[in-house]
Amino acid sequence: MSLTFTVHHTSDRARRGAIRLPHGAVETPIFMPVGTAGTVKAVPQNVLEELRTQILLGNTYHLYLRPGHQRIRRLGGLHRFMSWPHPVLTDSGGFQVFSLSKLRKVTEDGVQFRSHLDGSAHMFTPEHSMEVQIALGADIVMVFDECTEYPATRERARESLDLTLRWAHRSRDYFLAHAEEVPWFAEFNGQTQNVFGIVQGGMYPDLRRECAERLVELDLPGYAIGGLSVGEPREHTREIIESTLPLLPADKPRYVMGVGYPEEIVEYAAMGVDMMDCVIPTRAARHGLLFTQEGRMNIKNLRYAEDQNPPDPACGCMVCRRYTRAYLRHLALAQEPLGGALNSVHNLAFYLDTMQSVRDAISLGTLPGLLARVRAHAGVHAHGA
Amino acid sequence: MSLTFTVHHTSDRARRGAIRLPHGAVETPIFMPVGTAGTVKAVPQNVLEELRTQILLGNTYHLYLRPGHQRIRRLGGLHRFMSWPHPVLTDSGGFQVFSLSKLRKVTEDGVQFRSHLDGSAHMFTPEHSMEVQIALGADIVMVFDECTEYPATRERARESLDLTLRWAHRSRDYFLAHAEEVPWFAEFNGQTQNVFGIVQGGMYPDLRRECAERLVELDLPGYAIGGLSVGEPREHTREIIESTLPLLPADKPRYVMGVGYPEEIVEYAAMGVDMMDCVIPTRAARHGLLFTQEGRMNIKNLRYAEDQNPPDPACGCMVCRRYTRAYLRHLALAQEPLGGALNSVHNLAFYLDTMQSVRDAISLGTLPGLLARVRAHAGVHAHGA
Repeated sequence: MSLTFTVHHTSDRARRGAIRLPHGAVETPIFMPVGTAGTVKAVPQNVLEELRTQILLGNTYHLYLRPGHQRIRRLGGLHRFMSWPHPVLTDSGGFQVFSLSKLRKVTEDGVQFRSHLDGSAHMFTPEHSMEVQIALGADIVMVFDECTEYPATRERARESLDLTLRWAHRSRDYFLAHAEEVPWFAEFNGQTQNVFGIVQGGMYPDLRRECAERLVELDLPGYAIGGLSVGEPREHTREIIESTLPLLPADKPRYVMGVGYPEEIVEYAAMGVDMMDCVIPTRAARHGLLFTQEGRMNIKNLRYAEDQNPPDPACGCMVCRRYTRAYLRHLALAQEPLGGALNSVHNLAFYLDTMQSVRDAISLGTLPGLLARVRAHAGVHAHGA
Repeated sequence: MSLTFTVHHTSDRARRGAIRLPHGAVETPIFMPVGTAGTVKAVPQNVLEELRTQILLGNTYHLYLRPGHQRIRRLGGLHRFMSWPHPVLTDSGGFQVFSLSKLRKVTEDGVQFRSHLDGSAHMFTPEHSMEVQIALGADIVMVFDECTEYPATRERARESLDLTLRWAHRSRDYFLAHAEEVPWFAEFNGQTQNVFGIVQGGMYPDLRRECAERLVELDLPGYAIGGLSVGEPREHTREIIESTLPLLPADKPRYVMGVGYPEEIVEYAAMGVDMMDCVIPTRAARHGLLFTQEGRMNIKNLRYAEDQNPPDPACGCMVCRRYTRAYLRHLALAQEPLGGALNSVHNLAFYLDTMQSVRDAISLGTLPGLLARVRAHAGVHAHGA
């Protein structure tokens, strides 16, 4: 494993730093756009570069089903397949099996499931998830975990946690034995991928603590908090992140999976989270929801029908420089593919710019002010809509 | 009307020239991408500019129904609405009423129809079509015509032709009385739009001749051949174009509406056509059909599953510079929006580059060779697929 993580500035619990990965450096705290099936929905790779996207997340479950990890391996790995020469992280597939697949059956060995695409039968084990992720060749890969459902009893959360820990060992062992099989091993002078552990434990802080402590013994290059954004109240999400973060090694990247709204990612970064990913900016965009400095905007609203302002007057992205709210509203109502694409570009720009502001505020010691401003717009609809 | 048309080179029947329009100059022969509802489906305006698109076609029927021509007028016209400061042409709505609307009823006055969107009742008359087109503010507008169906008896074609001629007069009269109402009239120092006539007459060359002769008396700044691509054999299309073109004034742009495949647009340009438009490049793209120097390519074909070549190795477009056939195939099969978008960009690049080659070949006197090469790939599938 060949990651290096350097903290350059701290501000209270927040830290600004950089992760050096085989395919490049990533500034932290970072937001990772989700490129589920080898594409950030509707956004071309050159536009992601123009937005200064530093790292993408790919979904192992989707890529395994289509086009298949062996095919991607033969094509040189995910970076080459999708023409994205910058860092990539893949999840383990555990969350998607949990949320998308059918007829799921969990055993000690792994998870049997049926594809949401064609009903075909498959099995993911920790070893198989790692095999798939090595074939995909992301810079960071995740141990195979069981995402505990919400709500879960304490007993159920403990069982799930114990299974996740055993799977973490198996994932790591398989990875260490096969790390040199990554498609770009020779090309990158013997560098390998980096495996992150995932803390589970449901909504029980003491179980989270136990999971974190036992995972840290594995001495992995980074740690994630999983099992959030599964339907729990946002207050629980924050409490679990807040209580779990101090248990993770301060000299390693700390990643919270699957979050969140703009005010949440700022808040979590202020708590010391280094990495986050979420489908919200692109999924919301496809439904006509835009994030702006003034709050959220449902671009389909009649009030924008003849509004010639840019979506977000405070934004300098390529969409806000060229198009009006009236035009984006028209595209959304007409269900024109350009609408979802432009909305996605703006929302990603908003998220990436937000994280740049967070990094700058950490360096400048102005994070409390930024956090207050962002909180003021939390859940607010622009123009009192 | 403020168009100027200059022929710079001729080569046999073909001619290379330029049309000066209020929003800029257009080199001819030109292919016009179709931006039906104020957007070339899935392709952002800056990409159209990178492809050196010179003029777009907008559909009056669609824009009238949504977002409405009065709204577009209040927003400054179609150019400003869609942030496209370059030339635009709108059709009259006649063809779309013919092909898309429901419960169509044609009278001397005009066409009653029901919207394909919500079934609401509407009526287009020549006067109304011109009113809508003046509100949209395209550089070139078209007289309101009745698109004769195929097949049509001689009697039916004559009736339709006579109606179209009476409507052409009414269209011109309304336009001349209201030309100064175009949204950009003052801003463009009193320039106005340009009305083109449309030759109908079904598949009867003598009716086409009569229609052309009577339309030419109107002394409009340009003439189109309409009523093609309505299901007739391609041989008929060519014959009608070939026999009608010489009847149109040589010092005015000659436009064939709604054509065609790459080999057709080259052939028609060689016959002396100056302007063409067609949905084929973008519609085919959304179905995974790519045009290449080697012929047509169904990118979904299994043979491309692990093909790391660019879609068209002879193409220098932004898609062919970055992505592989394997990746585009994956996007098409996964129905990812990026697939249709990238395929559209390539196909438009192919069409626009083809017309640039035609213009260059006219200047260089090498058009026969280009035509032979293009014909050799007509209907051919790349790689013998």
